[in-house]
Amino acid sequence: MSGDDTLSLLLALGLLLALGRALGELAFRLKQAPVLGEIVAGILLGPTVFGRVAPGAFETLFPAEGPVAIARDGLAGFVVTLFMLVAGMEVELSTIWRRGRAAFAVSLTGIAIPFALGLAAALFMPRALGCEPGADPVVFTLFFAIALSISALPVIARTLMDLNLYRSDLGMVVIASAVFDDLVGWIVFAIVLGMLEHGGQSVAPTVALVVGYAALMLTAGRWAIDRSLPWIQAHLSWPAGVLGFALVLALFGAAATQWIGVHALFGAFMAGVALGDSKHLRETMRTSIERFVSSGLAPLFFATIGLGVDFYVHFDLGLAALVIVIACAGKVLGCAWGARWAGMSKRESWAVGFGMNARGAMEIILGLVALRAGIIGERLFVALVLMALVTSIMSGPLMQRSLGQRRSRRIHELLRPGAFKSPLLGRTRTDGLLHLAGALAEEHKLPVAEVQRAVLARERVQATGIGNGVAVPHARLAGLKGPVVGVGISPEGLDFDAPDGRPARIVFLILTAPQDDGAQVELLAAIGRLFEDPGVRERAVGLRSFTELQALLKVEAAHAGASR
Amino acid sequence: MSGDDTLSLLLALGLLLALGRALGELAFRLKQAPVLGEIVAGILLGPTVFGRVAPGAFETLFPAEGPVAIARDGLAGFVVTLFMLVAGMEVELSTIWRRGRAAFAVSLTGIAIPFALGLAAALFMPRALGCEPGADPVVFTLFFAIALSISALPVIARTLMDLNLYRSDLGMVVIASAVFDDLVGWIVFAIVLGMLEHGGQSVAPTVALVVGYAALMLTAGRWAIDRSLPWIQAHLSWPAGVLGFALVLALFGAAATQWIGVHALFGAFMAGVALGDSKHLRETMRTSIERFVSSGLAPLFFATIGLGVDFYVHFDLGLAALVIVIACAGKVLGCAWGARWAGMSKRESWAVGFGMNARGAMEIILGLVALRAGIIGERLFVALVLMALVTSIMSGPLMQRSLGQRRSRRIHELLRPGAFKSPLLGRTRTDGLLHLAGALAEEHKLPVAEVQRAVLARERVQATGIGNGVAVPHARLAGLKGPVVGVGISPEGLDFDAPDGRPARIVFLILTAPQDDGAQVELLAAIGRLFEDPGVRERAVGLRSFTELQALLKVEAAHAGASR
Repeated sequence: MSGDDTLSLLLALGLLLALGRALGELAFRLKQAPVLGEIVAGILLGPTVFGRVAPGAFETLFPAEGPVAIARDGLAGFVVTLFMLVAGMEVELSTIWRRGRAAFAVSLTGIAIPFALGLAAALFMPRALGCEPGADPVVFTLFFAIALSISALPVIARTLMDLNLYRSDLGMVVIASAVFDDLVGWIVFAIVLGMLEHGGQSVAPTVALVVGYAALMLTAGRWAIDRSLPWIQAHLSWPAGVLGFALVLALFGAAATQWIGVHALFGAFMAGVALGDSKHLRETMRTSIERFVSSGLAPLFFATIGLGVDFYVHFDLGLAALVIVIACAGKVLGCAWGARWAGMSKRESWAVGFGMNARGAMEIILGLVALRAGIIGERLFVALVLMALVTSIMSGPLMQRSLGQRRSRRIHELLRPGAFKSPLLGRTRTDGLLHLAGALAEEHKLPVAEVQRAVLARERVQATGIGNGVAVPHARLAGLKGPVVGVGISPEGLDFDAPDGRPARIVFLILTAPQDDGAQVELLAAIGRLFEDPGVRERAVGLRSFTELQALLKVEAAHAGASR
Repeated sequence: MSGDDTLSLLLALGLLLALGRALGELAFRLKQAPVLGEIVAGILLGPTVFGRVAPGAFETLFPAEGPVAIARDGLAGFVVTLFMLVAGMEVELSTIWRRGRAAFAVSLTGIAIPFALGLAAALFMPRALGCEPGADPVVFTLFFAIALSISALPVIARTLMDLNLYRSDLGMVVIASAVFDDLVGWIVFAIVLGMLEHGGQSVAPTVALVVGYAALMLTAGRWAIDRSLPWIQAHLSWPAGVLGFALVLALFGAAATQWIGVHALFGAFMAGVALGDSKHLRETMRTSIERFVSSGLAPLFFATIGLGVDFYVHFDLGLAALVIVIACAGKVLGCAWGARWAGMSKRESWAVGFGMNARGAMEIILGLVALRAGIIGERLFVALVLMALVTSIMSGPLMQRSLGQRRSRRIHELLRPGAFKSPLLGRTRTDGLLHLAGALAEEHKLPVAEVQRAVLARERVQATGIGNGVAVPHARLAGLKGPVVGVGISPEGLDFDAPDGRPARIVFLILTAPQDDGAQVELLAAIGRLFEDPGVRERAVGLRSFTELQALLKVEAAHAGASR
């Protein structure tokens, strides 16, 4: 690569990561999985928008061919290999065994029904579905059926992680079924590609090898890794030994399935499953790898997806709508039916169906291979990508909705700059409370006198110093919609009659509605938990601005969540 | 990339990482920086050895051109960009300011003397130094002088990290000087390349831009980053927000200096300096990035260096020896003199000289650019690489030797399988001690009765239960060479009269020589510190094998070391 190529690549990666992260944050605000924002960032930076607005700059930064493109795609491939390792590490085999029956039912109906529906549709209306005039109808039909059957393991995994469902039983059913569906889907796809090349024979070895590899990883591989880890931790340097081992495992696992002829990603995923199952893998190592790969590097991969194709030129509304409808009908109904059959509740069954419906990156990779092999044209490819996006976008919200999930209350989301007082005025508990209650009431347009009265009355019943320099005065107030929180920092400390006798230097004032009993308990417990950590207490008294307070609460809450 | 290319790339990366890590561990055992093992792994896998033994396989796995090579080198470039970010993050500006005078003196003499020596040598004996017949003598002379003057920031940083000297004052002097030398070296190199292309003009803008970029990063950039971090932590998701910010910073920083025309690595490094200086960057984030990049990914880059050239064909002993002698003389003497001049002690001055003498990757990158530009031939290139390796290998041990550094005693290094008893027999303290002391004495061929007597006598003077289920009986024993440690696990617990009244479930028995007073204190303190952590105590009682014990002590010791 020349110097100019290096410059293009660095700028391109920087842009992909920056815009990917920005839109990922936006997606998160809109209660979507960040990964969708990342994919949209790629479409914006791709030929569809950026390439149209500034073709020269686009060609320099994101060329479709040549060294820059190869290096960029190679890097994206490396990143997604690591991402699959992490996704695999998060799979809890014990949960899958426990939920084996449900997973089996879901994966069976989840692949059979969309496949049958796709087969029928492609047989009856090949033209409407974008079959090009010269294409082999059998190959096209089979491909279309497969395209409807597979799921997007990385996107599903990411969506479940984002919704905090990944390690739940439900999440494991979805992941187990998706793994199974994808394995079957990719094997059948390998068969179809084999039919294209040498007319159908020599497919049996591939199937045998894939099943053999998976079985090996789940038995001997798992055992060998579990035996190796203590040795590595004892005899090699830390953490380089374990990290290197994990990465080498991912690369060789990926190479194994690539050699077999199914996609490299499966090998890395199965290697991750075998590695993550070992109880000798330290939690800090797990978090360390997971954090860096899925939060730091993964956006790079997801943002490169949209670079490959022009979504404007090849857009066909009718085709896209048709593909989306058939895809959703087959997958959602098929999986939900399987889940019901396995005895899951109605709510959970729908959630499984919507979860499995996400297609994401896998669909696009499959589509790209088919496009290059001449099985499909660009119109259908764009329709498939849109289908992948739409199903992925629907996935998270519809799952949440089916489960009727309520987001847990986080303190930092309830704070407002106006209700933060540093320093808190007053030399006595009462003066401090009046000041803080007044500020909180004003900020939320509540009756000041009433709030102050309620808070002081509660404080008289029982002092609210909880020790460690923290006090949590609180009161119930009729007419409140949701809980509100104010924070005051008192450099000298106010006597809140804490059990340890120390004056309170940070005061959280919490108001909740009388009927919302859970909120008060939840918030008080969260604050107590947070300030058990001496590091947090030390940081808290040094706070100088509202932003610093928010940062502290948010980061620590994330930590407390991770370690639980 | 085709499927076969992907397979080649995955296997190649897996091999590079696996052999790199293995030889890195070996280097560590030989008290060398792991990075040297990683570079040697690349030479073994490159044309020098693997390419000679199995040319067909070599050409498939590590082609010099084509998509696989581009993707591999692109990935290595990405990794080294992140590595430079981390190296930058570790720089403590306050220490550099504090040691500014020394750093200035060292960098001045450290560049002037090797440059002058290189200039003189190249002027008087160009042929002996491998100047090709057709080459421009002025360009060659300047290049040779620069090649002797630059240091290898990544290798120096890695060596210092490996020796635990990176954050020391000495380490900061070395790093500050190396940064300065490299900046000057690369700028002059850019001038030389400019002379080749357009005969010397248009050099001033480059110089101005580089200095401007560095100044900007150290002032406005640093300030802006410090202001942004709390906002990012408060408003974006954690840890994706900060991680993404750090990576984008590295990529755009690298792009900036690449655009200016000095090497991209400098931009990433300066971005790291600006980022790492912010007190708002959380320690967990710092460790998380550092760990993943420098232990996990960096070996990939360092192992690719040796792939590019055949070290056998182009090896010229006389030339290599000459280059090594001139290079060492100029750099070591120059830097040591500068350090003395700045008032450092003799020991420290030599350590600075040897530290700065490491050339490593930078030399090789510089050499590669010169080779491609036709300034030097392959003979001199190989000599330069060997010089880089030899100076890097010498660097660590000679630094350690000059400083007279003694390695601190780690418990896990003193353990032997024979002195680990689980379960520890006996129902009383005395029985347990007799059992453990006997085993320890036998393992180390010490007089059993004498050891048992000494341990029981010490125990009678004062009970050694330190609470939390841990006891640390100990004794001094004449004739011991170094401290020895035995460990017993008692599932029911033995009464060691601990302050908290709890029976000891894990017993460390420590024997030290009477004259070695420090050892006992050091080991007792380390054990006490380790078992303050409830997680460690919980793990300790569940131990079933010697290997698990070693793993626990080692990993936890590394953690305790990192957090101090």
